[in-house]
Amino acid sequence: MSPEDLGIPGPVAVIGSGLIGTSVALSLSRLGVDVLLADTDPSSIDTAVSAGAGRPLAESDTPAVVVVAVPPRHTGRVLAEASGRWPEATLTDVASVKQTVLDEAVALGADPRRLVGGHPMAGREVSGAAAAVANLMDDRLWVVTPLPESEVEHVRRVHRLISACGAVPVEMDMTEHDAAVALVSHTPQVLASALAGQLLESSPDSVRIAGQGLRDMTRIAASNVDLWSDILAANAVPVADVIDQLVASLGRVSDALRATSNGSSVAVDGVADLLDAGVQGQRMIPGKHGAAPSAYREVLVQVADRPGELGRLFTAAAEVDINLEDVRIEHVLGRPSGLVGLFVRPDAGDRLISALREREFDVRG
Amino acid sequence: MSPEDLGIPGPVAVIGSGLIGTSVALSLSRLGVDVLLADTDPSSIDTAVSAGAGRPLAESDTPAVVVVAVPPRHTGRVLAEASGRWPEATLTDVASVKQTVLDEAVALGADPRRLVGGHPMAGREVSGAAAAVANLMDDRLWVVTPLPESEVEHVRRVHRLISACGAVPVEMDMTEHDAAVALVSHTPQVLASALAGQLLESSPDSVRIAGQGLRDMTRIAASNVDLWSDILAANAVPVADVIDQLVASLGRVSDALRATSNGSSVAVDGVADLLDAGVQGQRMIPGKHGAAPSAYREVLVQVADRPGELGRLFTAAAEVDINLEDVRIEHVLGRPSGLVGLFVRPDAGDRLISALREREFDVRG
Repeated sequence: MSPEDLGIPGPVAVIGSGLIGTSVALSLSRLGVDVLLADTDPSSIDTAVSAGAGRPLAESDTPAVVVVAVPPRHTGRVLAEASGRWPEATLTDVASVKQTVLDEAVALGADPRRLVGGHPMAGREVSGAAAAVANLMDDRLWVVTPLPESEVEHVRRVHRLISACGAVPVEMDMTEHDAAVALVSHTPQVLASALAGQLLESSPDSVRIAGQGLRDMTRIAASNVDLWSDILAANAVPVADVIDQLVASLGRVSDALRATSNGSSVAVDGVADLLDAGVQGQRMIPGKHGAAPSAYREVLVQVADRPGELGRLFTAAAEVDINLEDVRIEHVLGRPSGLVGLFVRPDAGDRLISALREREFDVRG
Repeated sequence: MSPEDLGIPGPVAVIGSGLIGTSVALSLSRLGVDVLLADTDPSSIDTAVSAGAGRPLAESDTPAVVVVAVPPRHTGRVLAEASGRWPEATLTDVASVKQTVLDEAVALGADPRRLVGGHPMAGREVSGAAAAVANLMDDRLWVVTPLPESEVEHVRRVHRLISACGAVPVEMDMTEHDAAVALVSHTPQVLASALAGQLLESSPDSVRIAGQGLRDMTRIAASNVDLWSDILAANAVPVADVIDQLVASLGRVSDALRATSNGSSVAVDGVADLLDAGVQGQRMIPGKHGAAPSAYREVLVQVADRPGELGRLFTAAAEVDINLEDVRIEHVLGRPSGLVGLFVRPDAGDRLISALREREFDVRG
């Protein structure tokens, strides 16, 4: 694809050479787009330029599109500055919260007709220009939140830019986006942190008997505190709304449990209702490739803890031409052994079990 | 090991031929122990006997040890019946809650001098005699909760039985055990269910943009409602206590977030404090082999979605003699591609990256 085919009539400026900004710049550069890089930290620009992400933005440059990829707390101001500096440019951003950020941009003078918000669903757990890769956005959903004033041509350019990066644009309105991330991302983060925080007051023996459930429930508690404080503050009210609903629901369970201990069977029903709703809600979450998680069968295998055993296991599955839809490794605390769960399509389950037993794997059904 | 070497002076009766009971029976039978099986469902006994777990309990049998492996709500009664029927036998159980269950057993007439509670940390996600395997308990922790009245010889027999099953006995007192499982197992279950339940009221688009975090946080919500209602009711007060602490902590975050939206920077600090505590608490959870999770380095690799790619990946690691400490597979919703995280000892990270790049894997640092 040539830059003209993209339908973006000029250079693209990427402000902020972190993981997301530099990855976006790399994926546009590989298509031949003239990408202009800016950052408050000159060494980040150097890293991005060396990686082939583009060239440093010069005073005389006039970008057709500006992508602001700085932390959420600076995004509004930088969008407003870009709007004033380049009065024709399409303006977009990648902040994970939309309403407060775009409101701030407009309040500081950004032109709402040229402003179209964005939020790529990618890029946790590593950061910085050095971690950027051209295919970070491949196949990721990228939410687009136009303002009521956004003009169609600017919205279209943002869609084209997203597709050029290999991602899939999904339009939502700002409040819908913010409520959605409050529910599926921001509140889970708060819950994981609150639960993990409770462990600080417990004995080491308690934590020692923890299983995979607790590990899953607290994994995201190991996140960047500054970034998350920033995100939660920017989406404060939608997150507080979801937390309040959860607090009400948890309060009812706690009351029901205390009543249960006094022999109330109505209370037992209340607890079962919460568990039932959880089973149904969990089924709504798409599995791999959008399939329902329950669509797969899990085959459990006890694997020896030495180099090559996992390779031997997965190679065995490949030899009989069975694709693994998901893999789960459960560890035994304090001892060198591991239980591996292989998720396959239901019709492949028996065939996988036979193939593994033939190769003397310890299959647990 | 001969049955005499076990230090158990006679047959072992296992009451309840479900997953745990039959697995315990299988592991004792393989050592040559005379195992006596009982269940209210004759077909479960048949399945267990066919698998080689032992022989049906006869009227004339006199077990030296009785292991009660029935659902928690029946455990107290069955322990009391066993105590009356075999006045010399050591009595133990496998229920996941100890205080209420053992209190009930004693109230119904079980002899507290011969009663020693137990809780093996094994065996989720599959159930029934047919799913039982002799090595289910291998290397698992098995909590032992003696009563104040339990006599030393009976406690010792339970320790020997646990070791014979391949598990690792860990002594705790009953209230300590119940508070620990309330914190690390029962409350996480309630949280996962409450969070998953919130999804029922949301739009499909919200759930569509969910990432790995939400999936991790709700995986255990897909559990057996009857079993969990039973467990939560049996450990009602300790679970309600942990929930109440969490509710208080979440309420403070919600208040802080609403204050933040009004511009309070003190409130921002409150949110950061919760996140900080979460980071510290998460570090307390043992990783594989009891090592701290942070002791490993994660290498991210983009893997094509076709049979054999995972095998090729793990074989490559084995070829350069690097052991994988953990594996995490992150899926991209709606599209066939997958990001795999390989956890290795820090000194092996660079070597793994080089080896994978030589083999043309798409390594993302």
